[in-house]
Amino acid sequence: MMANMSHTAAGSVQKVDIKDTFWSKYLELVRDVVVPYQWEALNDRVEQAEPSRAIRNFRIAAGEAEGEFYGMVFQDSDVAKWLEAAAYLCSTERDPELEKIADGVIDLIARAQQPDGYVNTYYTVKEPGGRYTDLAECHELYCAGHLIEAGAAYYQATGKRKILDVVTRLADHLHDVFGPNPGQIRGYDGHQEIELALMKLYEVTGDMKYVDLCNFFVQERGRQPHFYEQEAAKRNYTSHWGGIFKTDNYAYSQAHAPVTEQHDAVGHAVRFVYMCTGMAHLAAVTGDQELKAACRRLWDNMVNKRMYITGAIGSQASGEAFTVDYDLPGDTAYAETCASCGIIFWARRMLMLEPDSQYADVMERALYNTVLGGMSRDGRSFFYVNPLEVDPGVIAGNHTYQHVKPVRQEWFGCACCPPNIARLLASLGQYVYSIYNHTIYTHLYVGGEACFELGHGNVVLRQESNYPWNGEVTLTVDEAVSEPFGIALRIPDWCPCATIKVNGEAQPLDGIIEQGYAVLNREWKQGDRIELQLTMPVTVMKGHPHIRDTAGRVALQRGPLVYCLEEADNGPRLHELRLLQIPSFGLHQENSLMEGMTVISAAGQRLMETGWSSKLYRPAAAEEWKETELRFIPYFSWANRGVGEMRVWFNSVEPC
Amino acid sequence: MMANMSHTAAGSVQKVDIKDTFWSKYLELVRDVVVPYQWEALNDRVEQAEPSRAIRNFRIAAGEAEGEFYGMVFQDSDVAKWLEAAAYLCSTERDPELEKIADGVIDLIARAQQPDGYVNTYYTVKEPGGRYTDLAECHELYCAGHLIEAGAAYYQATGKRKILDVVTRLADHLHDVFGPNPGQIRGYDGHQEIELALMKLYEVTGDMKYVDLCNFFVQERGRQPHFYEQEAAKRNYTSHWGGIFKTDNYAYSQAHAPVTEQHDAVGHAVRFVYMCTGMAHLAAVTGDQELKAACRRLWDNMVNKRMYITGAIGSQASGEAFTVDYDLPGDTAYAETCASCGIIFWARRMLMLEPDSQYADVMERALYNTVLGGMSRDGRSFFYVNPLEVDPGVIAGNHTYQHVKPVRQEWFGCACCPPNIARLLASLGQYVYSIYNHTIYTHLYVGGEACFELGHGNVVLRQESNYPWNGEVTLTVDEAVSEPFGIALRIPDWCPCATIKVNGEAQPLDGIIEQGYAVLNREWKQGDRIELQLTMPVTVMKGHPHIRDTAGRVALQRGPLVYCLEEADNGPRLHELRLLQIPSFGLHQENSLMEGMTVISAAGQRLMETGWSSKLYRPAAAEEWKETELRFIPYFSWANRGVGEMRVWFNSVEPC
Repeated sequence: MMANMSHTAAGSVQKVDIKDTFWSKYLELVRDVVVPYQWEALNDRVEQAEPSRAIRNFRIAAGEAEGEFYGMVFQDSDVAKWLEAAAYLCSTERDPELEKIADGVIDLIARAQQPDGYVNTYYTVKEPGGRYTDLAECHELYCAGHLIEAGAAYYQATGKRKILDVVTRLADHLHDVFGPNPGQIRGYDGHQEIELALMKLYEVTGDMKYVDLCNFFVQERGRQPHFYEQEAAKRNYTSHWGGIFKTDNYAYSQAHAPVTEQHDAVGHAVRFVYMCTGMAHLAAVTGDQELKAACRRLWDNMVNKRMYITGAIGSQASGEAFTVDYDLPGDTAYAETCASCGIIFWARRMLMLEPDSQYADVMERALYNTVLGGMSRDGRSFFYVNPLEVDPGVIAGNHTYQHVKPVRQEWFGCACCPPNIARLLASLGQYVYSIYNHTIYTHLYVGGEACFELGHGNVVLRQESNYPWNGEVTLTVDEAVSEPFGIALRIPDWCPCATIKVNGEAQPLDGIIEQGYAVLNREWKQGDRIELQLTMPVTVMKGHPHIRDTAGRVALQRGPLVYCLEEADNGPRLHELRLLQIPSFGLHQENSLMEGMTVISAAGQRLMETGWSSKLYRPAAAEEWKETELRFIPYFSWANRGVGEMRVWFNSVEPC
Repeated sequence: MMANMSHTAAGSVQKVDIKDTFWSKYLELVRDVVVPYQWEALNDRVEQAEPSRAIRNFRIAAGEAEGEFYGMVFQDSDVAKWLEAAAYLCSTERDPELEKIADGVIDLIARAQQPDGYVNTYYTVKEPGGRYTDLAECHELYCAGHLIEAGAAYYQATGKRKILDVVTRLADHLHDVFGPNPGQIRGYDGHQEIELALMKLYEVTGDMKYVDLCNFFVQERGRQPHFYEQEAAKRNYTSHWGGIFKTDNYAYSQAHAPVTEQHDAVGHAVRFVYMCTGMAHLAAVTGDQELKAACRRLWDNMVNKRMYITGAIGSQASGEAFTVDYDLPGDTAYAETCASCGIIFWARRMLMLEPDSQYADVMERALYNTVLGGMSRDGRSFFYVNPLEVDPGVIAGNHTYQHVKPVRQEWFGCACCPPNIARLLASLGQYVYSIYNHTIYTHLYVGGEACFELGHGNVVLRQESNYPWNGEVTLTVDEAVSEPFGIALRIPDWCPCATIKVNGEAQPLDGIIEQGYAVLNREWKQGDRIELQLTMPVTVMKGHPHIRDTAGRVALQRGPLVYCLEEADNGPRLHELRLLQIPSFGLHQENSLMEGMTVISAAGQRLMETGWSSKLYRPAAAEEWKETELRFIPYFSWANRGVGEMRVWFNSVEPC
């Protein structure tokens, strides 16, 4: 049994099988390397990496092993995220071996579940009496949320009910414990996640009580009297993280004001996007207009004031957080991989609210740049932090850059990012299409076969492309229904000129563009063929004048890919390079290190260091520049050739 | 009795009375505002400032008050630095009221001195048994050093022996306790200061045992087996600052290698320059060539690889420390005021080693920019951190800039900088001249009368100028000796063209320039008049190509002054401004807010924000620039008109 992947009034996306020259190898990487590797990590069998002990914690909680709880208070979530990724892999291709491991994990989780439905190894093993005493700090509902997501995904993938039963019992328990009634806890978690998970559980079960509980958590957040304050007072203000609970930074978890009164993207970036994902999904299901307005407003602030060109967010390491409008430093950026995964989750839910290409544009930007860049090209190492400018010598010597690593790391003490990439890539099919108003919307150009339920029949579309290396996309109708419906194709924000042919016949785009999509309405027949041609020139990009860090600099983008300069191609001191005003770009397929990637060459200049004595400063004099060829690689592929400088924003000859 | 201010083989500078249009008002400020204000602060009578309790600690140590020690472990040094500043004020002008207060403090210190000569209120009051158990962390010899400096200065100023007796007893005690012999501590302080203080005590007393003790401390530093390790082992690795003593960052206090094997300016910037001050003075007295070579090498690395154009050092907040070569970020800079005071102390001692203008050039740069900038123009508030680029909105919202303040603060919990500025400005006369090889060297152009002992007689020189606003300097010989001697005038590194007349007659400079000084040798007569004309154009400066932060930017300098753009004159978003390639500068006397300062205007352009939608990024398009007049003020005067943006390095139209 294959449950629906998403519901709308008009139909549903049933299944998307990705067969794509670019993505298929990533999915294989997730299947063959990332998920197995992470399984080893969860079982503490990766040498040179910090032990996880996350599986062992479940064994202890189930009474099957002796020992102490180990790791972060949210260690359980690593197991859940792994299981969710495994579930998505199972949904795209039956994999008996992986299923066997997953079933084993599920049995273990079921044995660790308490009689009342509660699941959490930290509170079961380490603080048995401490349940629900420090929601602000201890990620209890966050862990529950990840488990619920995993349970819903595994049930959808395999039709096996065991884990669905575990997580519905868990969710039912939460439904009893939390709420506005006497005897219930009128509170919410310090790390949002349960909200979006409950909406997924609703999607699978159709049970509105999970929507109600999500709505409760969303609406309670940030209200006065403040829950964190009340909760902290009850436990005498102790803090899980040592010392005293601080009551002065509720914005860190977006609990400084009711969500419908929030205007800016603030606080911990991952918490923010997870919250908004839940809010948007909730608004799409309930039609809550105030919530919808809040989602749009917060999206607008994040995307148009506080997001890097790579689709990364979080301008500071402190609190892994947003800062202020237009503050987007490239070198001290936090730009966490998980936060860009969260942008993609959120964008998908915004597209349920309204099919506006701005959401898919950002989804694409975050996916092809920061998320892909978060993983090495062998799937074995990961970035947490994704800076736009790196000088390894400075990073090593200046503590300001303490959070920045010049190469990807094997595994982290707090291992949130690797499994987040894995579960996102393994479920990539969920992000390609959606149905709205009897129209199939194409958000991402990813090859493969997709099956839709539309009206009373099925539609099958086959997508082919060599994206992101060129912009030719073909959609073939392999199965249709006997009634008119729409097929909408996103015209990306980066594309200066798009053309569409249907069965060889050019379609004028005038009048058929709706909110960034070309909408083709007709009675589609089997064998109909749509050819989309997106011109994909190398584009010199500028940052908004209010951004201090990009002033006087440019970046290169081609299609969805942001490019960068790397020391491996251009030598050291990338700040001494500049692009000519009329640069004449060349495109090359790189078949050695870069495996078929399109790299860009451009005419540029390097500043000669002539005339400098040993002095640090001197009167400005005519500078000597030497012609040189600049070479740019896709940002996502940086740091795969050892340690070296990298920069996205670089100097160019400015018009006088 | 007025003791010598410095000794050399050939003579000595006896006294310098500053009478200068620029500096006199600063000295008055120190006398009328800073020193009295700091006295109030030391006595906890400044509202809105953190209490100091430094005087109270001495009362408790003397057994005259009840209570606990309060403040930092080095709280005593604030009293010493204040006393030293008061001493310098007394040396330039008798001030019975101030002397009365100072005598009272001296009596108090004497009463707090222990029978064996030891003075330290922390260890006397709070940890009576803990003396000399944690030199690495607890500033015990640092506090002793400051007291010795104060004692030497007050004795030189007033001829009163009481405090000199206190500090010689203290130094004699240290001489007994520390050394290579059995029963002695073979160690040194974690914060260098005692070294330079012992050299000053030698200067006043002529007693070589203080030179020997200084040499011991200097030579022991960084040797193996490591003293910090041995000392920490003895106390079971407890740490004064909480937790465990870390044995992995000896470079923080330049104890990672013997000083003669050190090559780079590393670690805590103030510790570094204090250490080098002591080393240079020691090398000048002993003639130690290895030490002299180390001083030159470390100076060269600091000045030519790791110093801001403002004469500031310390590129990171963490450890208030140096980072790596050419890493000079303007906005995250630490650039501590005290560190620039230390550069000036060190430069003076390098000039004892060899009269090379490079030392005085840097002294001047640090003095006129960072040190002066460290104090508000009313003498009531101070910068600890002196960034070269400030955006107050970003500072408030991005924790990376946590250490940066957009306006000067009244007093600090760790109050090292204000008294350091006070004692430096009050003793400014010590930095103007030195004698070397029967020649009077003029390092700074500061008006006033100076008296020298030369051979068997006295020389009196009178200097007049309107420096730093123009470069016309006159030196008149008011008293001479009946033998030839040299008068050497520094030709500053910023000066493209200098002319000299003696008694109206032009002196060709060819052949008389020695290591950056024009050396005039003759039999000088009373009434002889030297006119030095330094052309002082506005100069567009560039940073070395290896500096990432200054790439594509320029700064303005005129004479010794670095200039900056401020929001008060130029509006917000200073990064949107650029200087024209041929900017045509204007100079203006500013008589309102800027009290007679020369400000600079220049033709520039402001980027228009036309054509931008709400988006953060867009393809590069022709940009519109609007002509505008840029207005620059001296860097030292920034942040005297409320909160606003500031930047030293700004954009300019670059040649294609």
